[in-house]
Amino acid sequence: MDLPAHCLTLYRVRARFAETDLMGVIHHAAFLGYLEAGRIEYLRRRGMTYLSWAEQGVHLAVVETWIRHRRPVFFDDVISVEVRLVELGRVKARFEYKLTVLRGATAELVAQGATLLACVDSVQKPRRIPPEAIFTLTEAETVGAELLG
Amino acid sequence: MDLPAHCLTLYRVRARFAETDLMGVIHHAAFLGYLEAGRIEYLRRRGMTYLSWAEQGVHLAVVETWIRHRRPVFFDDVISVEVRLVELGRVKARFEYKLTVLRGATAELVAQGATLLACVDSVQKPRRIPPEAIFTLTEAETVGAELLG
Amino acid sequence: MDLPAHCLTLYRVRARFAETDLMGVIHHAAFLGYLEAGRIEYLRRRGMTYLSWAEQGVHLAVVETWIRHRRPVFFDDVISVEVRLVELGRVKARFEYKLTVLRGATAELVAQGATLLACVDSVQKPRRIPPEAIFTLTEAETVGAELLG
Amino acid sequence: MDLPAHCLTLYRVRARFAETDLMGVIHHAAFLGYLEAGRIEYLRRRGMTYLSWAEQGVHLAVVETWIRHRRPVFFDDVISVEVRLVELGRVKARFEYKLTVLRGATAELVAQGATLLACVDSVQKPRRIPPEAIFTLTEAETVGAELLG
Repeated sequence: MDLPAHCLTLYRVRARFAETDLMGVIHHAAFLGYLEAGRIEYLRRRGMTYLSWAEQGVHLAVVETWIRHRRPVFFDDVISVEVRLVELGRVKARFEYKLTVLRGATAELVAQGATLLACVDSVQKPRRIPPEAIFTLTEAETVGAELLG
Repeated sequence: MDLPAHCLTLYRVRARFAETDLMGVIHHAAFLGYLEAGRIEYLRRRGMTYLSWAEQGVHLAVVETWIRHRRPVFFDDVISVEVRLVELGRVKARFEYKLTVLRGATAELVAQGATLLACVDSVQKPRRIPPEAIFTLTEAETVGAELLG
Repeated sequence: MDLPAHCLTLYRVRARFAETDLMGVIHHAAFLGYLEAGRIEYLRRRGMTYLSWAEQGVHLAVVETWIRHRRPVFFDDVISVEVRLVELGRVKARFEYKLTVLRGATAELVAQGATLLACVDSVQKPRRIPPEAIFTLTEAETVGAELLG
Repeated sequence: MDLPAHCLTLYRVRARFAETDLMGVIHHAAFLGYLEAGRIEYLRRRGMTYLSWAEQGVHLAVVETWIRHRRPVFFDDVISVEVRLVELGRVKARFEYKLTVLRGATAELVAQGATLLACVDSVQKPRRIPPEAIFTLTEAETVGAELLG
């Protein structure tokens, strides 16, 4: 399936103190959390919450993750997570991510990532992504960001 | 020291999927992260970043934590963290926290907490809280929230 | 209820790299994980797994936590967690913890803690702790440690 | 560099309650912690601690991670992490991982992973892996596992 350019969401998250490690940088495991928060925001901006899916017995389980770290990220950095849906099959969806941090006037690429998700039912068995979910996943954003702080 | 009523900051944070556990609720260990994020926001709203303190060799180490859980918190809940500075000694500062979640029209108290922090230098030795830090800690907010999402 | 002295379990856990923070020490939130791991070991050494309880609709939800940090803990330290059941009511159980790290020939106290747990059913409603659970909780250890590494 | 078959370490770790999520399984982000713990054990079994390297200004920073999840892992599962050094360049080292869980008499493959690490100095600048480190990384195990529990 050829996916439209609007299958894109931008999400900003602040790196937490608890996510640092003794090297003085954000620990690499924290990045999976940033990708996940961005992916959940991708759904929210299309009017759909993870919970409403879960109630219909539709879950998107993470089956593969890949992250490439380009530059260190530090405590209190605001990370812009660009989430793009790049592939959508009968059961699986693939998202790609670009993470940037503003340093002075420059948005520096700090990491790239990709996750493959599989639609599963409540007992973790693969199932087809339902048509309404396909519709929502491939829409443009219909809902604004809910800003917190 | 009698602390003014303006020693208060409100911070909103969204409960993450990764913070849930198999009981279907937010795991209790995640709450320490919410308190910490609120405390760091308390400083930011007074024009002071943790990093600027750290560069001066001033760190606030957590020496005691207490949390009372009143009601379960669920994935995607927006938690309002009310952070109040309640005691300020020569070396130690005590913050108290009220965490609420909006359910329908009601802000339900989900947890209360308290943390005791001690001022330490770069090698974890206790030191007096410097006068500028005391000034900043007891100010009203001077900086608006930076909203993210 | 007066609890016997044998209501005690010792558990050893190694502090992980991912649990450090930029101060170069183990972040305070990691300690709740050590207490939990020790508490689960307390049950395992009495022939009872969390899962077998969960299947009977018996959960021990954490309702209150308290931790006092005495000395910093570092990456790769082996922490001895002493878990003691100190109170057992109709619905609630209270555990206390002493965490020590061997430095040279001395076991240094690094932290103390306490947690209050409430027995709840599958929808988080309080219920009486069942008699078999009371029996098991107040037994001496009947099962050896399963050593991993 | 052709790496000998003995560049292999087996490490066992128990999945923690705090690592579960509301799907009732171990959250995917926890796996990066299992890989890291296995990698650190790989070094320990060759007589070398992360801390001794760090004191010499030698750090192995994670620059790329990949994980493929094959089957769900549950709370309290004992995960066997097989860590293999598969590539060693002037600056970078690549480890591969196989994670299995014993179900009945069968060791089921639950996940595979790979991490690329780069040798950096104390300010995160790339540097050559020192000859002693190359020697240690390519040795067979010289130290037994330290079992904990």
